[in-house]
Amino acid sequence: MSAALSAVPEAQRRRPTLAITCGEPAGIGPEISIRAAWQLRAEVRGVLLGDAALLAQTAQVLDPAIALSALSVQAFRNSGLPNFPQDRLIVIDCPTGEPVVPGVLDARNGRAVLQTLDVAVEWALKGQFDAIVTAPLQKSTINDAGVPFTGHTEYLAERTATPQVVMMLAGGDAPHLRVALATTHLALKDVSAAITFDGLGRTLDIIHADLRDKFGIARPRILVTGLNPHAGENGYLGREEIDVISPALAAAKARGIDVAGPYPADTLFQHKYLEHADCVLAMYHDQGLPVLKFASFGQGVNITLGLPIIRTSVDHGTALDLAAQGLGRADHGSMVEAIRTAALMARAKNSL
Amino acid sequence: MSAALSAVPEAQRRRPTLAITCGEPAGIGPEISIRAAWQLRAEVRGVLLGDAALLAQTAQVLDPAIALSALSVQAFRNSGLPNFPQDRLIVIDCPTGEPVVPGVLDARNGRAVLQTLDVAVEWALKGQFDAIVTAPLQKSTINDAGVPFTGHTEYLAERTATPQVVMMLAGGDAPHLRVALATTHLALKDVSAAITFDGLGRTLDIIHADLRDKFGIARPRILVTGLNPHAGENGYLGREEIDVISPALAAAKARGIDVAGPYPADTLFQHKYLEHADCVLAMYHDQGLPVLKFASFGQGVNITLGLPIIRTSVDHGTALDLAAQGLGRADHGSMVEAIRTAALMARAKNSL
Repeated sequence: MSAALSAVPEAQRRRPTLAITCGEPAGIGPEISIRAAWQLRAEVRGVLLGDAALLAQTAQVLDPAIALSALSVQAFRNSGLPNFPQDRLIVIDCPTGEPVVPGVLDARNGRAVLQTLDVAVEWALKGQFDAIVTAPLQKSTINDAGVPFTGHTEYLAERTATPQVVMMLAGGDAPHLRVALATTHLALKDVSAAITFDGLGRTLDIIHADLRDKFGIARPRILVTGLNPHAGENGYLGREEIDVISPALAAAKARGIDVAGPYPADTLFQHKYLEHADCVLAMYHDQGLPVLKFASFGQGVNITLGLPIIRTSVDHGTALDLAAQGLGRADHGSMVEAIRTAALMARAKNSL
Repeated sequence: MSAALSAVPEAQRRRPTLAITCGEPAGIGPEISIRAAWQLRAEVRGVLLGDAALLAQTAQVLDPAIALSALSVQAFRNSGLPNFPQDRLIVIDCPTGEPVVPGVLDARNGRAVLQTLDVAVEWALKGQFDAIVTAPLQKSTINDAGVPFTGHTEYLAERTATPQVVMMLAGGDAPHLRVALATTHLALKDVSAAITFDGLGRTLDIIHADLRDKFGIARPRILVTGLNPHAGENGYLGREEIDVISPALAAAKARGIDVAGPYPADTLFQHKYLEHADCVLAMYHDQGLPVLKFASFGQGVNITLGLPIIRTSVDHGTALDLAAQGLGRADHGSMVEAIRTAALMARAKNSL
């Protein structure tokens, strides 16, 4: 799979400004956010959103050379981002209500997590941030804080008034895989009924538009799996391919989208087919993600398509158990990839 | 994943005798069977079952150095296998009714294909063959010949009076993957109802027994996926894990089987977990096979567990279109792996 690069010469590029929300403060989010932003500081201007005291303490333990400078949300609102040299990371302080104990959830800190998202979204929509990168949060902490919350993706869709988003994961080398999902977190027995002509059409429209506009791929090529084994084997193993998927692909083609399928999922995920595709659209979670995570060695990136802003995320959870054991144990590889991907997308979208 | 090797010293080993059924004569089966058996002749004593004239003609075009000697089924019944040197392959002639045109199916030749299976099974049960390796056949040819036939695996189960078999695919290096399936060729919407306590129990018993007896793994470790995304997330995304799968695993553990799960399929297929497992049991076709085929670069091996005999197969079809273009185009890599796996299993089972 190919990735277009900006046409702007290296020397004239500015570093994309990325809002990095540090996620659940008792998890590994603060550590991996600091490490990844520091490691990539020559490529991106990372702005960390989280509890400034916790981040300062964490950075000090990780590496005393890491320089952070914090400002309040109010100062940021009044004056924007300061122009620091690249060896100093900016923190926008979203203070937790209570002291953070690594590995121990505290609902009283849920609203601070939500504030990091709200600030990031507001100022990404206003163009102050080129993209948002999110560290993992704990849904229960936010719910227990009294705010109904079903997930990062749903919350960002709501805050940006986006009617439908598409989850895409990317990762791996040779081939670099991008796998989008037609359905996400649904019981397996409910998947068939959730695959509809209209829903697939909207999903393909979003993938097509975002690969073009946010990845700079002029004419994205999308390969689509069937729902059933062997893509239904001409109706012998299920009729959804004939009744729903093929008509939806034909309609998308008629709208000018370069899409092909439905193909048997077990043979589609082979290098010889993948190298001619920019994205695979799988029908459901466990059809598309095992191969993506196998290929990316656990360093996949979660990308939300369909939002008016760029948003990437790690593909793992808060790892409270690891956080409880102390700093220095977490792998920040997925966060590095999430930041790199956001930067690539920001350059493609804004011609940086 | 580990594979036990025979304890018999190299010099004392005899080559395992493998029945290689050449499959649909108009497909790539004859070509890949000859090439693989010839390539591996120092390791295995391959006995090709197919139309002797077609095989002779095919071998002559592929490489004039390939030496074949044919005998009739009757001669084989009367006198067994001749003791040829390893640079001469044995063919047991199962003549087609009509001349074979590459790429063109002919129902009149269906019974000859079936005869290759019947001879192979009969004499594998009698111990004349250490294992059976099958090239791909075309179900429709056999059905059109007037014999109801749903597939190789089902036919072999019936001919050996086996009540339940398990499909397992293997392939890939570092890690070498083995993926068994709890359900196989079922429409996706029917999968949930097909996962039962008793069925899973029998499946685990078969996997355990065959990995021990046919792979020589003293205490096989089996990891099991959930049915739903995130293995149901504590019932939030489906209850089959709680109601069916976990109880079946607990019962299998109580019978002494080393099994763990159910795990989320998307995180289970990662090297760090796979390296501690001898087999992954996936709940359905497209949950387990995309990652297996991705990892094995299309050179996976299909192994039927639960039979009283050893049976392996390629993981691809007859490729009629390729066959129609002439010899020399087919990739015999999967057949090589199928033969190697059968030989490894024969050595483990019979201490060769």
